[in-house]
Amino acid sequence: MHQLSVQTNARTELLDITSKVEEVVRRAGVDNALCTIFVPHTTAGVTINENADPDVTRDILAVVDSLIPFHDSRYRHGEGNSAAHVKSSLFGCSLNVIIEKGSLRLGTWQGIYFAEFDGPRSRKVWISFSPAV
Amino acid sequence: MHQLSVQTNARTELLDITSKVEEVVRRAGVDNALCTIFVPHTTAGVTINENADPDVTRDILAVVDSLIPFHDSRYRHGEGNSAAHVKSSLFGCSLNVIIEKGSLRLGTWQGIYFAEFDGPRSRKVWISFSPAV
Amino acid sequence: MHQLSVQTNARTELLDITSKVEEVVRRAGVDNALCTIFVPHTTAGVTINENADPDVTRDILAVVDSLIPFHDSRYRHGEGNSAAHVKSSLFGCSLNVIIEKGSLRLGTWQGIYFAEFDGPRSRKVWISFSPAV
Repeated sequence: MHQLSVQTNARTELLDITSKVEEVVRRAGVDNALCTIFVPHTTAGVTINENADPDVTRDILAVVDSLIPFHDSRYRHGEGNSAAHVKSSLFGCSLNVIIEKGSLRLGTWQGIYFAEFDGPRSRKVWISFSPAV
Repeated sequence: MHQLSVQTNARTELLDITSKVEEVVRRAGVDNALCTIFVPHTTAGVTINENADPDVTRDILAVVDSLIPFHDSRYRHGEGNSAAHVKSSLFGCSLNVIIEKGSLRLGTWQGIYFAEFDGPRSRKVWISFSPAV
Repeated sequence: MHQLSVQTNARTELLDITSKVEEVVRRAGVDNALCTIFVPHTTAGVTINENADPDVTRDILAVVDSLIPFHDSRYRHGEGNSAAHVKSSLFGCSLNVIIEKGSLRLGTWQGIYFAEFDGPRSRKVWISFSPAV
């Protein structure tokens, strides 16, 4: 298992970690494989979305923040970050990317994003590889 | 493939199955591997979230129930459980956890939850393992 | 890695690709394995849900479209398809299905759906296999 460290900069943020994941793939020396990306936090997640226009990630966060507001009188959880926990479950904390000939196979416009929902914080990302058949 | 049986107790419920999954890992005798957890139902899912304060899972279900109400005049599906189907797709029915030295690697506050959206019911969870490289 | 071509027919659509995925599994000749399904697009996703009553997928799309409307004055992304990007992240672009004895193991009512959120378009689906242990 490999570990990345990520520093987020805002309460909610989609932080592009594609090049960091690519570097782990390169160092691991895997050829054809399945890459699993896992976020070991309950107020964050991992997602893939467009890496060209930064307005896309901004719009994603704006829509999700308006559906699941940070403050809501119904929340009982004492830490006050229930919205972040909801978003973590909706985005998910694990995903797979296929590796071919030592490279992550992503679509033309896809980047891998660490999804921060209760930052800024120092976060971890775990990465593992399984063989392809 | 390994199978767990789960009995849910309410219409919507996040049921902690971490120790049951851990027991499957132990019995399977895997060392370093990828664990896939798959829910073979269309009105349930699987998610990872905080296992310390029970108000977290309560708040998650409350927010999701308010966004996707069980009753809505727009639903056409005759069984009347369309909300459960929507939640199933948003939470997802498969996820991965990394196994190292025979143990599930989870973050400090993470537990694995069976997400019931149309219970109470008797449910199944399927678990499989792939090698790590 | 294997590739499927998919032609979607509407702006939002859940298109059943189960039989296409099954054909890839058959041709690949895998026995016991993990199947990873990956969508290389940022305005689409992949999900599993009920394949019996077509009103289920209709209701899912209706609920999601009402929560995340296609037009919204808050969107800044110039292409005007921010809603599709949000839905892509919420549904996710990768999932796993377990293969036993050469067959996809799905629940009784489960089908695999390509989730189109900005169609109609010609789309791709990538499929890879990892061994089971």
